[in-house]
Order: sequence, then structure tokens, then C-alpha cells
Amino acid sequence: MNNMKQRRIVLASRPVGEPVESDFRLETVEAGTPGNNEVLLKTKYFSLDPYMRGRMNDGPSYVPAIEVDAPMTGGAVCEVMESNADGYAPGDTVLSFTGWQEYAVAPVKGLRKLDPAVAPVSTALGVLGMPGMTAYAGLLNIGQPKAGETVVVGAASGAVGALVGQIAKIKGCRAVGIAGGPAKCAYVVEELGFDACLDHRDGNLRAALKEACPSGIDVYFENIGGKVFEAVLPRMNNFGRIPLCGLIAQYNMTELAPGPDRTASVMRAFLTKRLTVRGFIVGDFASQAGEFQREMAAWVREGRIRYREDVVDGLENAPAAFIGLLEGRNFGKLLVRLP
Amino acid sequence: MNNMKQRRIVLASRPVGEPVESDFRLETVEAGTPGNNEVLLKTKYFSLDPYMRGRMNDGPSYVPAIEVDAPMTGGAVCEVMESNADGYAPGDTVLSFTGWQEYAVAPVKGLRKLDPAVAPVSTALGVLGMPGMTAYAGLLNIGQPKAGETVVVGAASGAVGALVGQIAKIKGCRAVGIAGGPAKCAYVVEELGFDACLDHRDGNLRAALKEACPSGIDVYFENIGGKVFEAVLPRMNNFGRIPLCGLIAQYNMTELAPGPDRTASVMRAFLTKRLTVRGFIVGDFASQAGEFQREMAAWVREGRIRYREDVVDGLENAPAAFIGLLEGRNFGKLLVRLP
Repeated sequence: MNNMKQRRIVLASRPVGEPVESDFRLETVEAGTPGNNEVLLKTKYFSLDPYMRGRMNDGPSYVPAIEVDAPMTGGAVCEVMESNADGYAPGDTVLSFTGWQEYAVAPVKGLRKLDPAVAPVSTALGVLGMPGMTAYAGLLNIGQPKAGETVVVGAASGAVGALVGQIAKIKGCRAVGIAGGPAKCAYVVEELGFDACLDHRDGNLRAALKEACPSGIDVYFENIGGKVFEAVLPRMNNFGRIPLCGLIAQYNMTELAPGPDRTASVMRAFLTKRLTVRGFIVGDFASQAGEFQREMAAWVREGRIRYREDVVDGLENAPAAFIGLLEGRNFGKLLVRLP
Repeated sequence: MNNMKQRRIVLASRPVGEPVESDFRLETVEAGTPGNNEVLLKTKYFSLDPYMRGRMNDGPSYVPAIEVDAPMTGGAVCEVMESNADGYAPGDTVLSFTGWQEYAVAPVKGLRKLDPAVAPVSTALGVLGMPGMTAYAGLLNIGQPKAGETVVVGAASGAVGALVGQIAKIKGCRAVGIAGGPAKCAYVVEELGFDACLDHRDGNLRAALKEACPSGIDVYFENIGGKVFEAVLPRMNNFGRIPLCGLIAQYNMTELAPGPDRTASVMRAFLTKRLTVRGFIVGDFASQAGEFQREMAAWVREGRIRYREDVVDGLENAPAAFIGLLEGRNFGKLLVRLP
């Protein structure tokens, strides 16, 4: 397969605010050949996740920035085409971090083999992968939900939020979601079994939260920020916990919102309610990956956890899908499928 | 002692912003007589603490509001004058919550007997009392300082801050204080043994923190808020902890500061640095009171913990002293002593 051509998407320019299609560039390059302990991979699915927006910026964050002209990175499910590594053979399916491209040469260190007989391989990018682990580890370690408590989560039909609420239900909690639009809200309640789901586009979120959380909020799994956070904070109970997973509402901000500066009132609420707020990323709980895999896979098998994938076909459609993700246009775990 | 007159200070009006002397009123009332299981107390010292500012406001907080025309409450060290309760005799010294008054009738439930032979009784309002326990429990439970880490605390010459830094030193940390003025800073370093103390009135606190904390900040014991918090946050290390004890810089705020709204950048820092922020009040750790008493008393005896009291004489001087406390004019644990 020497000199085989492949297509990939690179970062063409750093977005200012909302990414636009011209911030990405589709290019054709040689796929390369695997060296020692490397494999040539053919991408079947790759993942689109909100955290990728942060990588498109320069400057320090919890993940290094993607260089301009470098390929967009991220989780992918691939088939091994050629192998120069023990234990990997053509036809094997693996989870890799090779991102938005058709083919990739990758060292086998960092790959995880997937068994298509156990679960659909795409789930390694969703319910049984990084988003699932994010929901599981953040909710259980930081949220520490107790039976009878109320757990609120935003982006409730999304890859992480959908799982947070369902795990909360398994733990005996009242689960209240926040999502954009009536279709998503109906799905969250009827299909996922949340006790309620509030449409943040629809009128007064504060009033809706008050009605949906008559005993207040004990755990707010934060992946939104902005106006949703403002609406939730006054309803938090004393000793509430806020696992801080993401802030999708502010990823495209180019400047701080106009005043007044609400920091003082936010800090005052943390103090007087004795809240615990803890930022995390999934890697902080890497030691719990085995436990997560076993428990989540069992919940999925038993039908206690349901999931929905939003599959977009074609590499060339990834930028628009990603832009839509940041606007909440996806419905379920967003994946790009390649032929 | 029927119909004995006593003087006390009541809340005359709710302050708007900074309290002024006319928000307080000195009045003379009957001291009353103790009923069953009650004692008549004569105040020797009472405590002035920043949290009292919150009680002067209406509205929910972690402590109930003081009613207008009701006496200012707070910790006091008193002598028993009359007793109608088993186990309490005239001449006993007790810790009570009877506040800004010369005499008080109090149920013995809620009193704690003090032994003047063990420690000066005033320490029950400071190093061996609520402020000491606040520093001890907040730093150890939430801050979780590890040897070699850097701990920063504001109001470093004050009742709580002085102890936070000294406990941090006992735990093998680098202790950096922030205080107002060169005299306090010199005391914090030379007498209390902090590694550095920065004058927040003097130039660029951000630059000073960078120099004083070359390895960043692992624990920020927050009792200030406002500009000090803004300066500290960029220096926090990943996985840092922020015990949120108080926000004295904003207690007198009548409205939020002008924009922009920095909440988004604060939350982003919590997320990307994976910080833990937890509000607390001393009562949240009440079960550790015995352990605190034993350990702190031993540290004081061994000379490993030093403390300073700022004693004001005379009931009538309490309002001005309290107003000064909120402006940082005290130097050490602020007490009012009665003849």
C-alpha cells in the first residue's frame, strides 16, 4: 500500500468565536506505511466532541492545542489494514486517537482492541467510551448521588448528559434534564426515563427548574455554563455537588459577557450553600476504566442504559456536523461514519 | 440580682454597604433572672468576627439574620454569677453565644466550661475556638495540604489566616500570606514563620504572587474574594483546592461590580485546572471538635502555633471596632473586653 493516498481534515485557521467551514480544510496526502510496532488503520467511525473546540484555540488548556495545518485529532474506531506489530492482524477492530482522516499509521501503544461480538464497535466512542466514562466517573466520584436526591444535567439528550441522568436513576435519584427543543425533551423523558426534561429555549428556565425540582437540586452535572448555570445555582441545596465537566455555552465566546460581574454572587452562593465544585476531565479517573467498562456494559446489556447515536456519513461533512454540535443541532452521540 | 440593669448593643438598622455607628444602638435593659437550668452570666470578652456582617442583612444565608432591635449575637467568654443549673456554680468561666452585652441569662445547654489553668480564657474565642477550628478543619479537610505544596491565605495576620499558614508550615508546606500593610506582613513572616507575606495594598499582587509562589499555588484558603481571588486564580496549579471560608472583601457590597462578567473565565479556570472549590462553615466539621482541641492546644503549648489578640476595651467601642474589622484595621484576633 505504499504511496496510497488518503483524505483528511486539517485545522486551516484558528476560529474566532464560532468555527466556520473555512477554519477546516480537506486535503489529500499519502497514508504512509507502518514502521516497527505500528499499524495502518482504516477509519470506520470517528467521534465529534465538544472538547475539540478547545483544542482549536491556542494557549494552555487541559489538552494541547492542535497546530494550524495539522489534522483534527480525536477518538476513532478503525480496522487494521496492515500490521507490523505483534498481536495485531489485518481485520482487527481498534479504538485509536487518529481523528478526522480516512487512514492513519499509528503505533499500537495507545490502541485498544474492540470485540464486535460484545457491542457495536461505535459504542467505543460513546456509551462504552470516553463520553460514558466522563458521565460515570464525574457523577459517581464528584456528584456522589444518594438515593432520593435530585440530579440535574444539561445537554440531556447528548452523549454525556443522557448517561448522567440514567445513572442517576439507577442510583435511585430524581433525574431532571435540560435540553434544546421539544423533541429532545420528549426523548429524554420517554426513552431515557428521566423524571423531567426542561427546554432551555422555552420561556423561564428558573421557574421550570423550581417546578421540576420541588426538593431543590443536590447534584448539578455542569456541561453547559452561562444562562443554564445561572438558573440552576439558586435552586442548589446546601451541601450540593457540581461536577464541572464542560462549558459548551461559552466555548465560542470571544469576550466576556457584559456586566455586572456576577463572580461575587456566584462565590457567595458556593459559600453560603457550602457547595462543592470540582472541575475534571475523564483522564483524571483513568484508574477506574476497568470498573466502568464492566458496569456500564452490564447496564447496557440489561437495558438499564439506553443510548442514541447521531451518525453523519462522509469525511467532508465533519466540519458542518462539528459546528452544529456546538450549536446543539446533534441529537445523541455525534459520529462520522466512513465507507 | 433581680431587676439589675445592664447595657447591650442592638442592631438599630440594617446597614447599606459599610456599617456605620448609627446602625448600632447602646441600650440599657434589665438583665433578667435565670430560670430552671439557666445561669446569669457576666461577660468578660466577646468576639468580633467578619461573619457577623452577614447576620446584619436580611435574607437567607448560612446563619439566620439578627432582627432589628435585637442584640448583636456572637461568641463570648463569661463568668457565672448565679446558677439554677446542676454543674454550674458562681465563679465558673464559660464559653457562650451571648454576644455584645454586659450580662446575659442563658440556658446551660450550649455553654462550654473553660479551665483558666489550661489556657487564657480569651483563646476560647480565637486560637482554641471558632476561628481556630475554622482554620484547622477547612485547611485539613478541604485543602488537604501535602508536604512540599504551596498554601496561600489572605487576611494572614487575622484570627483565621494566621493559623492557616502556621498549620500549613506544620504540614511541611510553603506558606504565603496576603495582608494589608508592611507591619502586618512583617509580623506574619517574622513572628508566625510564613515563608512570605504580600501586601495587597502595594502594587501588583499578581506579580508578587508569581515571585512568592515559584511552583504555583496548590491550596488557596479563601476568606477575601474580589481582587485577591482574581490575582490568585491564574497561579493555581492543576488539581488545586480552594477551601471557601469567607469573602470579606464583598460583605459590604451593595451591588455587583461593573462588567465584564468574569464568571465564565472563573468557571473555565476551575474546569481546565480541575480545581476543587468547597464552601464551608465551621459547624460542618463539628464532629472533629475534640480532635481540634487536643491538637491545637498541643501546638500552642509547644510553641508551634502563635497567636495575637487585638483587644478593645469597653462595650461602647464595639461598633467602631467591628466596622474597622471589615476594613482590615484590626491586627490579630479582635476581642472586646469588659471590666
